[in-house]
Amino acid sequence: MKQAKAFAPASVGNVAVGFDVLGQALDGPGDTATVTLMSSGVVVVKAIRGCPHALPLEAAANTAGRALQSLLAHAPEGAGFEVELDKGIALGSGMGGSAASAVAALVAGNALLPTPVSLSVLYQAAMDGEAAASGSRHGDNVAPSLLGGLVIAPAEGEPVRVPVPSWLFVALVHPHAVLETKRARAALAGSYALSEFVHQSERLAVFLAGCHAADAALLRRGLEDVLVEPRRAPLIPGFAEVKAAALRAGALGASISGAGPSVFAWCEGRAQAQAAADAMVAAFGAAGLKADAFVSVGAAPGARVVAR
Amino acid sequence: MKQAKAFAPASVGNVAVGFDVLGQALDGPGDTATVTLMSSGVVVVKAIRGCPHALPLEAAANTAGRALQSLLAHAPEGAGFEVELDKGIALGSGMGGSAASAVAALVAGNALLPTPVSLSVLYQAAMDGEAAASGSRHGDNVAPSLLGGLVIAPAEGEPVRVPVPSWLFVALVHPHAVLETKRARAALAGSYALSEFVHQSERLAVFLAGCHAADAALLRRGLEDVLVEPRRAPLIPGFAEVKAAALRAGALGASISGAGPSVFAWCEGRAQAQAAADAMVAAFGAAGLKADAFVSVGAAPGARVVAR
Repeated sequence: MKQAKAFAPASVGNVAVGFDVLGQALDGPGDTATVTLMSSGVVVVKAIRGCPHALPLEAAANTAGRALQSLLAHAPEGAGFEVELDKGIALGSGMGGSAASAVAALVAGNALLPTPVSLSVLYQAAMDGEAAASGSRHGDNVAPSLLGGLVIAPAEGEPVRVPVPSWLFVALVHPHAVLETKRARAALAGSYALSEFVHQSERLAVFLAGCHAADAALLRRGLEDVLVEPRRAPLIPGFAEVKAAALRAGALGASISGAGPSVFAWCEGRAQAQAAADAMVAAFGAAGLKADAFVSVGAAPGARVVAR
Repeated sequence: MKQAKAFAPASVGNVAVGFDVLGQALDGPGDTATVTLMSSGVVVVKAIRGCPHALPLEAAANTAGRALQSLLAHAPEGAGFEVELDKGIALGSGMGGSAASAVAALVAGNALLPTPVSLSVLYQAAMDGEAAASGSRHGDNVAPSLLGGLVIAPAEGEPVRVPVPSWLFVALVHPHAVLETKRARAALAGSYALSEFVHQSERLAVFLAGCHAADAALLRRGLEDVLVEPRRAPLIPGFAEVKAAALRAGALGASISGAGPSVFAWCEGRAQAQAAADAMVAAFGAAGLKADAFVSVGAAPGARVVAR
């Protein structure tokens, strides 16, 4: 029986200035998928563990199941997959849990193929899985979960890595509240002024220049979401205070992770990131929410096979 | 009599993916300003040469005059400036002529001050001048004209340089038709969908990654304006054919320079840029427009004092 187990990390989608375009892997939390190669010709989601809420077991409706269905198109005739998921990322947390499940399943499944597929094929298959879970095809969580680090996630073509400073650490705080991606997306409905795009793309450009130059002052100028954050912040209790707490602790910038409600901060060094995480947890506490904190290196590793 | 003469280059505003945010200097065309330090306490625009259309001589309404008025706030009590402009950039061409006049005047004027002001102050003063000419405060022409090369032009704070590949050349073709900035801006009225911004910012991010990595394939993927170009292209006779001609000649990408009607193309090497320029001139010719062509290095020098 050919079997492989893979781990895929959680990730920060959007990274403030790159809505649906940028994503960053986190070192620590993640999902694990155990995939068995079958001769059934189909994908079966056998079990999902570590998840208090019910996730769909029907393959086409499950993020990992749907992703493996796309991979099956590149497998030998008659091949099938059976997948078991161990969720390490809370649902609706804004930490890229659906993407991590899809990526972990794909990396494990790919390791079982006689001819593994390219990164491009895995990326597109992972976006198929993401669409099954969130209703929209976007790569800003699957790309970093797959590659690690900070990544540009285009709709077409391969993801593009962006260097981050060696001193960069990320603080992420997950409040115990669920914000459904669909509700977070609904907050973005309506039309936008061109001037909003100009302000946001100016920050995106300065932010990317700061990443390439490892320049903290540029990152401080660039790491600010003027487009999406103002529309979503009201959905997260205490957000303004949580963000302010991170900045007071010295963070270069802080914003909503993915669709929220988790909040992340970019920091100079591990100690500052820990201080920002503590301050954000305290601020969520003052708003009546318990919260978990994670501190990660900026260039966290991507998905990998952990057993076979 | 203290006098200085400065040259400031023409520039490509927007550079396809950075509307009001990115700009690139061109080597060759530009404006020259001769500034004399006076004890009048005011700015006088004495003469404008090389310009078939009448430009305002009233200082506050003239791009160079208005910029020098802002510089005067940093000059010793009672100081004044007299400025003469030699225009080398056609009006309404989309080559950043108003910005070049403002920048040339400022660089000359600054050279006459006992304590020259910082780049930041010059940049803000140049945007004041730009606003007098175009009705909107934007730095995507003044920043590259001042600094040279490819530049991020933020509304606040200093411009940020972006490296370009050493093999990069720019072809710019100026058809003999005037497109007023105000009319070009009117084409952008109305509201925008968030998805349009996602597509454009994805290209901006890939483009900047390509600049930093000197990666022609990334530049080819990124250098495409899906936001502004579709709305302005109908104002430029033959635009679709001109752009297609540049791409057929091998260009990495081509789009409208600033508010148009000039069209630019990014190319690998001088020979390809010359071929793209020739092809674009021929395509404008087929649309009934005579056109001038310029070929420039990607990292063209910025404004400088040429005599004092």
